[in-house]
Amino acid sequence: MGAFFVKAEIIAVGTELLLGQISNTNGQFLARTLADIGIDTYYQTVVGDNQKRLESVLKLAQTRSDLIITIGGLGPTEDDLTKQTVAKHLGKQLVPDKKALARLQGFYTQSQRPLTPNNQIQAYYVADATVLDNDHGLAVGSASTVDGVSYILLPGPPSEFKPMVTHKLRPLLIAMTHHDEFLLSRVLRFYGIGESLLATELDDLIVSQTNPTLATYAKDHEVTLRLTAKAPQKAEAVKLLNDLEAKVQARVGDYFYGYGDDNSLQKVVVNALIAQKTTLTAAESLTGGLFQSMIAEVPGASEVFAGGFVTYAMAQKAKMLAIPLKDLEKNGVVSQQTAAAMALQSKQRLGADIGIGFTGVAGPDKLEDQQAGTVYIGLAFKDQPVDVKLFHFPRQRNDVRTNAAMAGFFMIFQALQAERH
Amino acid sequence: MGAFFVKAEIIAVGTELLLGQISNTNGQFLARTLADIGIDTYYQTVVGDNQKRLESVLKLAQTRSDLIITIGGLGPTEDDLTKQTVAKHLGKQLVPDKKALARLQGFYTQSQRPLTPNNQIQAYYVADATVLDNDHGLAVGSASTVDGVSYILLPGPPSEFKPMVTHKLRPLLIAMTHHDEFLLSRVLRFYGIGESLLATELDDLIVSQTNPTLATYAKDHEVTLRLTAKAPQKAEAVKLLNDLEAKVQARVGDYFYGYGDDNSLQKVVVNALIAQKTTLTAAESLTGGLFQSMIAEVPGASEVFAGGFVTYAMAQKAKMLAIPLKDLEKNGVVSQQTAAAMALQSKQRLGADIGIGFTGVAGPDKLEDQQAGTVYIGLAFKDQPVDVKLFHFPRQRNDVRTNAAMAGFFMIFQALQAERH
Repeated sequence: MGAFFVKAEIIAVGTELLLGQISNTNGQFLARTLADIGIDTYYQTVVGDNQKRLESVLKLAQTRSDLIITIGGLGPTEDDLTKQTVAKHLGKQLVPDKKALARLQGFYTQSQRPLTPNNQIQAYYVADATVLDNDHGLAVGSASTVDGVSYILLPGPPSEFKPMVTHKLRPLLIAMTHHDEFLLSRVLRFYGIGESLLATELDDLIVSQTNPTLATYAKDHEVTLRLTAKAPQKAEAVKLLNDLEAKVQARVGDYFYGYGDDNSLQKVVVNALIAQKTTLTAAESLTGGLFQSMIAEVPGASEVFAGGFVTYAMAQKAKMLAIPLKDLEKNGVVSQQTAAAMALQSKQRLGADIGIGFTGVAGPDKLEDQQAGTVYIGLAFKDQPVDVKLFHFPRQRNDVRTNAAMAGFFMIFQALQAERH
Repeated sequence: MGAFFVKAEIIAVGTELLLGQISNTNGQFLARTLADIGIDTYYQTVVGDNQKRLESVLKLAQTRSDLIITIGGLGPTEDDLTKQTVAKHLGKQLVPDKKALARLQGFYTQSQRPLTPNNQIQAYYVADATVLDNDHGLAVGSASTVDGVSYILLPGPPSEFKPMVTHKLRPLLIAMTHHDEFLLSRVLRFYGIGESLLATELDDLIVSQTNPTLATYAKDHEVTLRLTAKAPQKAEAVKLLNDLEAKVQARVGDYFYGYGDDNSLQKVVVNALIAQKTTLTAAESLTGGLFQSMIAEVPGASEVFAGGFVTYAMAQKAKMLAIPLKDLEKNGVVSQQTAAAMALQSKQRLGADIGIGFTGVAGPDKLEDQQAGTVYIGLAFKDQPVDVKLFHFPRQRNDVRTNAAMAGFFMIFQALQAERH
């Protein structure tokens, strides 16, 4: 390689992939990682566990790409042929990696199973390659460069593949392609704005910027934006990111809630509550416990969440929350008044600092003559007057429920922010 | 085509796929559909929105495959080049489909937007092809056969792609490959047995059977098994499936819970409760509302589910469920006695026919000196004595919670079954 401009090609090996029995999530993960560090992928191929066909794919790839990355086929079974096929393609031997072999022997000794030659192959790599240690499994990866083409071999199980890409391959590729540059990424997370609207708001930045670059990714019910800067020194890269982020925040900061790949709206909210020692409860009708289960997803949630109510039927809104039945009948279950009462009563009965109430129509059918997707969320935030918001969510039943739960977290997020300012 | 043996190749077109911005779920869906009807896929390729590279991929595919299916690139933007590239590759013109053109004109008239030539292209197809109507969008698909190679062009948006595969392409391919045969599939769903154990139990059937065939698919926390039979008449195909299913049920029937692709354990349980007019409630600690939200996922759940409790902290188990605090302190929160009390008290307080209680350690930390993954589930089923089961789930925090909720549904499923026998 050496040159900055690299044409990458990803080859995923596995009959299970070809038959659609498993999804090629590894390919997507790798393509994103390559894009993030400025490497363009031109082709992705999936081929079965078949030596002849894999050979033909390698031969073709060699003519059109200078970085060839294979996924899978490094294991101990007869189906695992990638290593052998690449070695043959390059006219090289397979040689053992002492460290991996020792690990392998240790593993088999400990589990009191015989170490067969089949299993030993996992510690072998293509001669002259750089070994990529597998910290989460037994099969080593490798990186070779022959005649200007680099061959990277990675294991298939996602639990081994992803850490190897992030911790071994990514730094290696950065070193190979960015000799004297520092590469720095920052992920911003947004809720309440669609990907296309976010892209429109930032269109000129996305189009004109080459350093730092911006890329949007749509996730379920949220959008993330990745900023990537390169510079000779880390401090300069940080400054580039700070300047670009300031422009982004000025335009779409109202929808921003946090940083990082491994983050979520509920994590940000629950952690803020923990930091501020503020307790939370909920009364859920259409969401049926989803909001509370999203709280419980966050480690440490028990510090701020003691429990809450699922009040699906009107009678239980009356009984569990002590809301007068005549009020419910008069106002309707799907109403501003009921959402407010659910928030207030749950807060009061649990003795929490915040109570939130969800009522609405998940669908598919109408309820109280209101369309599916109609949702009221009431927020009783400390001693402030109850705030009720009305939403009209589109789409399917479970999207309505997830949308409602996310909207509830965002209302709490905004209330916490308002309090700090 | 004509011959039964077909070598298929899938080409997904789109720079967003190449960069990993979206996942190639279409490719997986199509590969599974092909496998189900006995067509083998040998290669899958992803290529960007680039005419030259798509051309080179088509040229190669023509040499090694006799069924080439492209996904994407049929839309109105400049990036959409698939139709034009295939037409050029085959030396054919693009011609308008009158029906699609009329639909397109109607759509633009109705939305009061001008119909530009760019947009019209969506109603064009490769001359001499069979048009595949798009019932969920504007861009038509097509199927041509030239020099013994079939070219199928499908739209990229999953909401258009999947129905076209299921309702247009699948019957077309069955007609092309199974001239005088009837093809019938049946999906069996299992809970509580891993894919590899299921495959081991059925190994001889999977290996030896060619008609009907068996294929296992692992899903989150469950396994499905697809039986596919072919025969000249439907009745014979049904008999083949019945005979094979009987063998399967004799071996692994204890784990079987239902039929069909679009099904789930919670659907089967909630629908059985509705049919038997049996009401349900829950008290959830570690699952934090997840079990109840899975009930609420099922349309019609309100007929049997009025509400329930999320009792995360010990104090709320005491207060909301009226379990004596001294009992909780004596037995511990993660205990058989507490799970039983949660089940009984929730049932009694809601006046439901069934109460279920979940308590355990989601992790990552230990609780009451018990390992993460330790879960007690109590089931108070009508007037039967409370049944408490202890589970030791492996893996991560949210897997423990989902595993626990699923195990709860399976306990109810088994109790309902026992009652019927």
